[in-house]
Amino acid sequence: MKIGVLGTGVAGQAIAGKLQSLGHDVMMGGRSADNEKAVAFKVRAGGRAGAFSDAAAHGDVLFNCTRGDATIDVLHQAGEANLGEKVLIDVANPLDFSKGFPPTLTIANTDSLAEMIQREFPAVKVVKTLNTVTASIMIEPKKLPGAHSVFLSGNDAAAKGRARDFLVAFGWTSIIDLGDITSARGPEQLLPLWIQLYRALGTAEFNVAVIKV
Amino acid sequence: MKIGVLGTGVAGQAIAGKLQSLGHDVMMGGRSADNEKAVAFKVRAGGRAGAFSDAAAHGDVLFNCTRGDATIDVLHQAGEANLGEKVLIDVANPLDFSKGFPPTLTIANTDSLAEMIQREFPAVKVVKTLNTVTASIMIEPKKLPGAHSVFLSGNDAAAKGRARDFLVAFGWTSIIDLGDITSARGPEQLLPLWIQLYRALGTAEFNVAVIKV
Repeated sequence: MKIGVLGTGVAGQAIAGKLQSLGHDVMMGGRSADNEKAVAFKVRAGGRAGAFSDAAAHGDVLFNCTRGDATIDVLHQAGEANLGEKVLIDVANPLDFSKGFPPTLTIANTDSLAEMIQREFPAVKVVKTLNTVTASIMIEPKKLPGAHSVFLSGNDAAAKGRARDFLVAFGWTSIIDLGDITSARGPEQLLPLWIQLYRALGTAEFNVAVIKV
Repeated sequence: MKIGVLGTGVAGQAIAGKLQSLGHDVMMGGRSADNEKAVAFKVRAGGRAGAFSDAAAHGDVLFNCTRGDATIDVLHQAGEANLGEKVLIDVANPLDFSKGFPPTLTIANTDSLAEMIQREFPAVKVVKTLNTVTASIMIEPKKLPGAHSVFLSGNDAAAKGRARDFLVAFGWTSIIDLGDITSARGPEQLLPLWIQLYRALGTAEFNVAVIKV
């Protein structure tokens, strides 16, 4: 499948590399077509590199791996026509590092980044997932023992089904559908606890398993 | 040990009953000394009933099991002199149900209920814990399989040690110290995800287990 990965950071590199290794035709998009990190992905993983608009045009499915505070601007650079009615899998977090560590959330409680994207681009089928784990766990959940959990939020059932297929291909087995796009507030607000656990445990390679009776 | 439980709702009943059954001398405090639910606890469990101020005076350790939006008012009713420098174990959540279900948080992201209490009563040793599970799981974690997690936040190490002793007596085995009282923001902001999981799983009897490499 043709996939566009928006963002050249740690999450973008991990997801683009994994998708390319799974046999997909992946273009990584950055601020310019000759973005160093996107070109490095092209060389290293045999994928494609382009500007945000190129990657958005290339993909039948798109991944948002940008910083949360840049996402809306990046998606405008990608271009509403290129985004069309595509599935956009949003793994970003609305973190504000401007006041140092730990970051706070730029939006919380009564809104979420996923909802902001959905409002700004109503035709796009936004699915929130994977934002609750570090990049290495996103693409290789089996690094951790047992069946730990990942969440899905989105308004379109078929789009969530496609996101679920990617999760299964990455190795996820406990995938919990939380509901419509407003349910993304839950996983996004997990970030403050995530950051505290990161400090308490001394590693980013952890996750939560939801356990019920 | 003499313990005061502030609040007569589901969490207060569960915690007061459990503590009484463990051999402690428990007084449940309500809005008045003849509060029906506190008197019912006295009859059912053999504990004591009183007003908030009576329970606060009685306990060497106190549990805050009130509604988050009433907590500060209740603690003023309990009386600063009765609270003294005691350990106050805060299991409440700052939920706003005024706009229906699902509730939002009255404070989030840059503040927490636990910090509000600590600011209002600086001498009290506030410890946040147990707010991330339903009452039946608070006092009987072994209802769920495996070692699932509970969190501790507070400024006073000895107070956290006393809270930990209660958790161990209740049956908790995975107790994660997140840090000072500001770290209560994480567990309090878990509530939106908790509410979504409650809907998705069809039960309140669940929890998260923190899994690391």
